[in-house]
Amino acid sequence: MKKLINDPADVVSEALRGIELAHPSLRVDHEHKIIYRADAPVQGKVGIVSGGGSGHEPLQGGYVGMGGLDAACAGEVFTSPVPDQMQAATKAVDSGAGVLHFVLNYTGDIMNFEMAAELAAEDGVTVETVIMNDDVAVEDSLYTAGRRGVAGGILLNKIAGAAAEEGRDLSAVAEVSRKVIGNVRSMGMALTSCTVPAAGRPTFDLPDDQMEVGIGVHGEPGRRRLPVAPAKEVAAMLVEPVLADLDFTAGDGVLAFVNGLGATPLIELYLMYGEVAAILEKAGVRVARTLVGNYFTSLDMAGASVSLLKLDDELLRLWDAPINTVAFRWGV
Amino acid sequence: MKKLINDPADVVSEALRGIELAHPSLRVDHEHKIIYRADAPVQGKVGIVSGGGSGHEPLQGGYVGMGGLDAACAGEVFTSPVPDQMQAATKAVDSGAGVLHFVLNYTGDIMNFEMAAELAAEDGVTVETVIMNDDVAVEDSLYTAGRRGVAGGILLNKIAGAAAEEGRDLSAVAEVSRKVIGNVRSMGMALTSCTVPAAGRPTFDLPDDQMEVGIGVHGEPGRRRLPVAPAKEVAAMLVEPVLADLDFTAGDGVLAFVNGLGATPLIELYLMYGEVAAILEKAGVRVARTLVGNYFTSLDMAGASVSLLKLDDELLRLWDAPINTVAFRWGV
Repeated sequence: MKKLINDPADVVSEALRGIELAHPSLRVDHEHKIIYRADAPVQGKVGIVSGGGSGHEPLQGGYVGMGGLDAACAGEVFTSPVPDQMQAATKAVDSGAGVLHFVLNYTGDIMNFEMAAELAAEDGVTVETVIMNDDVAVEDSLYTAGRRGVAGGILLNKIAGAAAEEGRDLSAVAEVSRKVIGNVRSMGMALTSCTVPAAGRPTFDLPDDQMEVGIGVHGEPGRRRLPVAPAKEVAAMLVEPVLADLDFTAGDGVLAFVNGLGATPLIELYLMYGEVAAILEKAGVRVARTLVGNYFTSLDMAGASVSLLKLDDELLRLWDAPINTVAFRWGV
Repeated sequence: MKKLINDPADVVSEALRGIELAHPSLRVDHEHKIIYRADAPVQGKVGIVSGGGSGHEPLQGGYVGMGGLDAACAGEVFTSPVPDQMQAATKAVDSGAGVLHFVLNYTGDIMNFEMAAELAAEDGVTVETVIMNDDVAVEDSLYTAGRRGVAGGILLNKIAGAAAEEGRDLSAVAEVSRKVIGNVRSMGMALTSCTVPAAGRPTFDLPDDQMEVGIGVHGEPGRRRLPVAPAKEVAAMLVEPVLADLDFTAGDGVLAFVNGLGATPLIELYLMYGEVAAILEKAGVRVARTLVGNYFTSLDMAGASVSLLKLDDELLRLWDAPINTVAFRWGV
């Protein structure tokens, strides 16, 4: 295992130290492994708490800040945070306007966030939960009942964060969150496995001439294992199931998002975006906004995912609204 | 070779297509492989042209835009662009205020930019050239006489771009560029090699238990090949030579920059930043600004570099000034 780490047991806590030192706009609760925006709780604003296993950086801490999340709970690598973490975060970001929990659809996360919501209710905090399940690759999976939550969560963070920032109430922020979830679909593929530091060896085996199409972000089996194909064909294998799942030709265009899984360099992601854009044009889907980069990674996995979000005036405006986080910063 | 590409011969042109489609704020001259800010030439503003081999994305196209470069010339992977490209770019971005060439210190780039500057002079454009040579690892190298130009070039792009944007004349922008070059030092290391698409196999061999300290961004030999060490020790191996080369305790603090080489995930880069920050604190160096991420990559190489830039009021203000590029966007 070749990694820039010290003791594998300390990877998450040491990365959190680096994040805190690098970004004065964030505050880290090291005991609970929570990244907060430094000015939380923001008076009158609905709080937004997310979290999940580490190893997907910049998820979720990179989306904490003005116009994004109020707190992100970091689990161990590829492991759900525990209810105590989410309870502490929920209490800390509540200014009385209630708190929204963003959960990616993995069984451990669902269970632990549910428990945290109950504990928070006992603390007197009103909590609503929304669950991202954008991965069209498979129904049910290694760690999931139903569809997995993947890169669509990034778009949820941004759009719901903007809605909360403009002062909407809890049910209104939950409502726009559900609109995002209803309008976004994703699918990914991997060229290589990844190595969890504590395990010290690749999570799964993928021969030198094979790729896995429809893979999950922890290496959960996808739809098919195939010989490595040209980018043009790979793009079609990702975009077509997404287009088949929802009509993206209606509405005010889409946000097209090519995400890298960690070890795939940007030059390949842009090449992939060119292929995705060509397929969308042929399918009569108008691209209104784009996002290309490593925004939801799986440690050192090589590969990419494609997400499409169907936009309307409201989603477009909230996407464009100012944000000041580590991963997204514009308008400020 | 596992890459998201089509024909290896088309990687650069197809990535440029993706960049153009993804970013309406950019314009691409496909014949000359040049990325322009869409509104170039900007009347009255000094133009800034950079470029170099592809494979280092987001370098240099990701730094084109308001407050950054006016044009970036893309060579083939790890290969200098040719003088025709820089000549075309120089002519296109000149509004009469002259053009600055930013060159990283590699022999091919130096030679080709020099020739382009002569051709541009014949076209009636006044050109000044500044050469980035921030890598303290070695004197002279595989493709370089003197020190190599590495991640310090990112900081140059930002700061000189801001100086040009605020309307300084050619010699003043060149002057602040030389101040950046005088104040920045870098050193890098790799855990793995990288694979140039046209070659189809790793550029060099690096055994499973070894790392190369002081490596160049094309895999040029560094100072030492050593057994893989904990991040704490790796950080010291990079920071200490940088601190030994320039006094960073004087002045108004430093910009501390941990750069990933492409395949190293962000969780490791933040962990490294924590180690770098601890060493700087012990050395009495005050960190005023930070940058952590994959900003100057070497295809799919795993590894990192550390750059320090000594700041003063002027450099700090120019660093903080608004920028609107693919890689950096703030204040707008």
